[in-house]
Amino acid sequence: MNDMTPTLFDFDVETGASKTAEPIARPLSTLKGYFADEDAFNAAVTEDDAMVYEYFDMGVPETSGNVAYGTTRIRPGKIGEEYYMTKGHFHTVLDTAEVYYCLSGNGGMMMETPEGKVEWREMKKGDAVYVPGRWAHRSINISDSEDFVMFFAFPGHAGHDYGTIETKGFRKLLVERDGKPTLIDNPRWQG
Amino acid sequence: MNDMTPTLFDFDVETGASKTAEPIARPLSTLKGYFADEDAFNAAVTEDDAMVYEYFDMGVPETSGNVAYGTTRIRPGKIGEEYYMTKGHFHTVLDTAEVYYCLSGNGGMMMETPEGKVEWREMKKGDAVYVPGRWAHRSINISDSEDFVMFFAFPGHAGHDYGTIETKGFRKLLVERDGKPTLIDNPRWQG
Repeated sequence: MNDMTPTLFDFDVETGASKTAEPIARPLSTLKGYFADEDAFNAAVTEDDAMVYEYFDMGVPETSGNVAYGTTRIRPGKIGEEYYMTKGHFHTVLDTAEVYYCLSGNGGMMMETPEGKVEWREMKKGDAVYVPGRWAHRSINISDSEDFVMFFAFPGHAGHDYGTIETKGFRKLLVERDGKPTLIDNPRWQG
Repeated sequence: MNDMTPTLFDFDVETGASKTAEPIARPLSTLKGYFADEDAFNAAVTEDDAMVYEYFDMGVPETSGNVAYGTTRIRPGKIGEEYYMTKGHFHTVLDTAEVYYCLSGNGGMMMETPEGKVEWREMKKGDAVYVPGRWAHRSINISDSEDFVMFFAFPGHAGHDYGTIETKGFRKLLVERDGKPTLIDNPRWQG
């Protein structure tokens, strides 16, 4: 029997930061291999191992009756022409969904299925994207100055499969071309 | 196999309102029997069947791999000394949780277990309350002027048991005494 008691945590509705919980930090050096332009990546890490994103793991039990939740905050920046982004992942239990609700900034969600369907949804403050089960997903900040902040929730038993994306990558990349976010084929994608 | 495609809906981060989806409305007349002061309730309904709360049902499939989500918006007001509130419910699959994230206003969550544990958590903008499985929950607006708005998420298969609360009520009521929110025993609670 579940004998959890209710909890309260705070997440700033602009920045996503919490006074009562500590985020997991993902500085540039933890994203080796994720950006297409490796020279630009190496130069950037050497110059300054800047923060790319942070998110919370609230330690909710990993069962289907629970809902993992928290905020994620992606900083503005680019490596070469590719925007700052999260690693991206499938859920280990593949057919589990996730909902993201944008609190501030301008970015979006890159999604793809194992069968090769690809969707990009741009998001601004107030937009909620529902990532259905089976869709890998990556958050991308397309602003050149503002953080991209979202509240997220997913089934407790979902689990995270980072390995598939780490090995194969996403089929598409989101890059800045002529000052605009542009979807291109990933030249390094491993089919 | 799940063949849903990703969706995007908007929910204003202050008001919870959506330009792309319609909320479910709960005016006063739909809450007959929920407030302790029946004379005050009847007088209020006769005078003006005011809106008490609205929430969204986004039609997410009712399976454990999905996450139902949306916003809820509770207006300010009282019936007698009792604050405007939602009906409150257990989940049909009792051991399923729900997370609420406050976007604006000042209110809170009344919670109780079948065994009689009671918890009240006051919330303001930026506070997230995790309602674990087995806890009935009701949202209450304690501001006298502002809407109380939250983003919520719960497992798709949770279901709603409104009947238990409709019949028995919650063990405690939240009323205004000397201008302050005060927890009192529910004189009509059916044990």
